[in-house]
Amino acid sequence: MIETDILIIGAGPTGLFAVFEAGLLKLKCHLIDGLPQPGGQLTELYPKKPIFDIPGYPSVNAGELVDNLMEQIKQFQPGFTLNEVAEKIQKLDDGTFIVTTNKGTEHKAKAVAIAGGLGIFEPRKPLLKDIEFYEQDDRGVEYFVKDPEKFRDKKIVISGGGDSALDWTIFLSNVASEVTLVHRRNEFRGALDSVEKVQELKQQGKIKLITEAEVIGFNGSERITAVDIQVGTARQNVECDYFIPLFGLTPKLGPIANWGLEIEKNAIKVNNALDYQTNIEGIYAIGDVNTYPGKLKLILCGFHEATLMCQSVYNRINPGKKYVLKYTTVSGIDGFDGSRKEAEKAVVKAIE
Amino acid sequence: MIETDILIIGAGPTGLFAVFEAGLLKLKCHLIDGLPQPGGQLTELYPKKPIFDIPGYPSVNAGELVDNLMEQIKQFQPGFTLNEVAEKIQKLDDGTFIVTTNKGTEHKAKAVAIAGGLGIFEPRKPLLKDIEFYEQDDRGVEYFVKDPEKFRDKKIVISGGGDSALDWTIFLSNVASEVTLVHRRNEFRGALDSVEKVQELKQQGKIKLITEAEVIGFNGSERITAVDIQVGTARQNVECDYFIPLFGLTPKLGPIANWGLEIEKNAIKVNNALDYQTNIEGIYAIGDVNTYPGKLKLILCGFHEATLMCQSVYNRINPGKKYVLKYTTVSGIDGFDGSRKEAEKAVVKAIE
Repeated sequence: MIETDILIIGAGPTGLFAVFEAGLLKLKCHLIDGLPQPGGQLTELYPKKPIFDIPGYPSVNAGELVDNLMEQIKQFQPGFTLNEVAEKIQKLDDGTFIVTTNKGTEHKAKAVAIAGGLGIFEPRKPLLKDIEFYEQDDRGVEYFVKDPEKFRDKKIVISGGGDSALDWTIFLSNVASEVTLVHRRNEFRGALDSVEKVQELKQQGKIKLITEAEVIGFNGSERITAVDIQVGTARQNVECDYFIPLFGLTPKLGPIANWGLEIEKNAIKVNNALDYQTNIEGIYAIGDVNTYPGKLKLILCGFHEATLMCQSVYNRINPGKKYVLKYTTVSGIDGFDGSRKEAEKAVVKAIE
Repeated sequence: MIETDILIIGAGPTGLFAVFEAGLLKLKCHLIDGLPQPGGQLTELYPKKPIFDIPGYPSVNAGELVDNLMEQIKQFQPGFTLNEVAEKIQKLDDGTFIVTTNKGTEHKAKAVAIAGGLGIFEPRKPLLKDIEFYEQDDRGVEYFVKDPEKFRDKKIVISGGGDSALDWTIFLSNVASEVTLVHRRNEFRGALDSVEKVQELKQQGKIKLITEAEVIGFNGSERITAVDIQVGTARQNVECDYFIPLFGLTPKLGPIANWGLEIEKNAIKVNNALDYQTNIEGIYAIGDVNTYPGKLKLILCGFHEATLMCQSVYNRINPGKKYVLKYTTVSGIDGFDGSRKEAEKAVVKAIE
C-alpha cells in the first residue's frame, strides 16, 4: 500500500505544481495518471506547441513547461503511479482515503486532489472484429508507445495520418525491423519537418507507406501475425508483430464519475473558490476538471487552485495549527531530499 | 485626458499580467505607478533575488520575471503614468471613472483595477530640520535615483548601509564627480559583491567613505550646497549638490484608502473570488492589495485574480455578449501593434 499526504489524480501541470505547494507545507504527494508519463495533455497532445499565456513566459513549449515543473518539484520527491487509472475510492472512519487503480494498486492518503484535466485520454479505436482480443496481454494491438524498446527488431504497422502517426513512424524506423505506415488518404497533416522526414524515410526504403488504405482485419490465433489491408479495391496482407492505430485521443471523465461527486457538464462541481473542495470533505478538484461560477479552464488558474487546495489540506491535517505564509525568496526551500535552495544572504561586513 | 478600457493602479507583476489577459479580450490598459519604473516590489526591493514559487520556474530572479512580463505584454501596448500616485477617483453617470494623480494627470477608464501590492513605497526619511524644504523643486534632497543622468558631474552624498546605498554608490561613482557614502556604522549589509566593490572603490580613492557618522544638517539658502556630518564627537562639512538618504521603503496604502472602498487590515476587501470586484461596482482589487477568505499574498494568485478580473470587465463592457474562451496555443495572439504570434500550423501534404 502506497501511503502519502495528498494523493493527486492526474499528473498534468496543475497536479504537478500542487506537489510544489504541498512541499512548501511539508506535505508529501503521490500522483496517479493513466498516461505513461507526467504532463497530461501538454506531453501527450502538444509537447512541441507553444503556449503564450503562462505568466512570465512570452512563449513556452508545452513539453518544456512540463520539464520545468518536474525540475521545480523534484526536491519534494513525488511518487508516481503511471499507466494506471484511479478506479475506486473508499473513505475510512478516520477521514483518510484508499484509492485503488484498475491494476489493483492501492494508495492511502489524508486528502485526495483530483487534477484530472479533461479526463482520461482514451484512444479512438478502429472498429475491427476481434480487436478487444488482440488489445490484451501483449497480443499485438497497442494504442500508446509506452516503451519503444518493446518494439525493437519487431515488425510494426502504424495507422493514422496526423502528428502521432508521423512522429512514431520516424522514431520507430530506428528501432523496429520494419515499419509500415497505413493511412486512408494520401495526404498527411502534421509539422512540416515530420512530413518531410517521413517522405525521406520512404524514399530511402526505410519505411513502407501504404496510402488510401485501411487495416481491416487481423491474422493470428494466439496473437497478431499479420494484418489485412484494403487498398482501393485490392487487398494486401502485411506480416507484423504489432499494430499501432494512432487516431487521436478523446477525454472521458472515467471512473471518478462514479465516486459520488457532484458533476456538472462533465466537470466536478466545487462549491467555493476558497479551497476547491468537492461535496465530499477531503476530496478536492483542481484545474480543468472542476467547475465553479466564473471558472476558466486555464493552466494559470489551475496553479492558483492547487495552491489554495494545499493550504486547505494543511489545515485539515493540522487542525488548530496556525499557518504562517513564508515567501520563498525570504525563507528559501528545504527539499525532502535534504537539498536547500535560498537567495544569497546579505553579508554584514566592515569596509576598512 | 488619457483614455483606456482598464486603468490599472500599480505596475507590479499582477498589474502587468492583467495587461496580457485584457489584451486577449481586446481591452486596452493603462497603468499608474508611484515608482519610476514598472515591476513594483520586484524591481524596487529585490530585483536580483530569486523567486522559487513562480509556476514553471524552478528559480527566477525578480527583475528577470518583470522583464519577461514586459516582453509578454508589449504587443498589447500598455500606457504608463509613472512617478505619479493615483489620488482622486470620480465615477461618472455612465459608469466610467476619472482618476487623477498627485501631479494632476487625468485618466478616463471603463473599469479600474487596483493592483497596488502592499501600497505605495514611501522612503524612510531622516528627521532633519528643513528637509521638507530641500525635498522640493530640485533643491538637493532625493529619495530615489530616478534618472542617474541628473547626477552627472555633481557632488553626491549618499546615506545608508544596505543594498541600495551600496549599489547606487557603485553606480554613481562612474557618473558623479564625487560620491561620499555616510553610514552610522562601520559595517554594511548587502550582497558580498557590492560590499567588496565599495571597498575597492574606496581604496582606489574613487569614493569617500565616512562611517560611524550621520548627516545632521543642511547648508544653502536656495538649495543644498553642503551637508553637516557628525562623526563621533567631531563635525565635518561636506560640499555637495545632492543628498540621497537610502534608508529603505515602507508601504502605505495611500490615497486609495479614501476612495470609499471597504478596507480590512490595510487591504481592500473583495466580497467574492468570482471576479475580485470591490464594494464599488467597476472597481476591482487584485494581487497583494486585496483580501478575501482564504487569500494568499502570492504572485501566482495575483495572476489568477487578474485573469478573472479581465473576464468580468469584458462582460461589464459588453453586456449580453457571449464570451468564448480561446486557447492561445490554438488561436494564437493578435497584438494591438499588428503583430501575430501563433503555433506553427500543421501542414497537409501528400507523400509521394
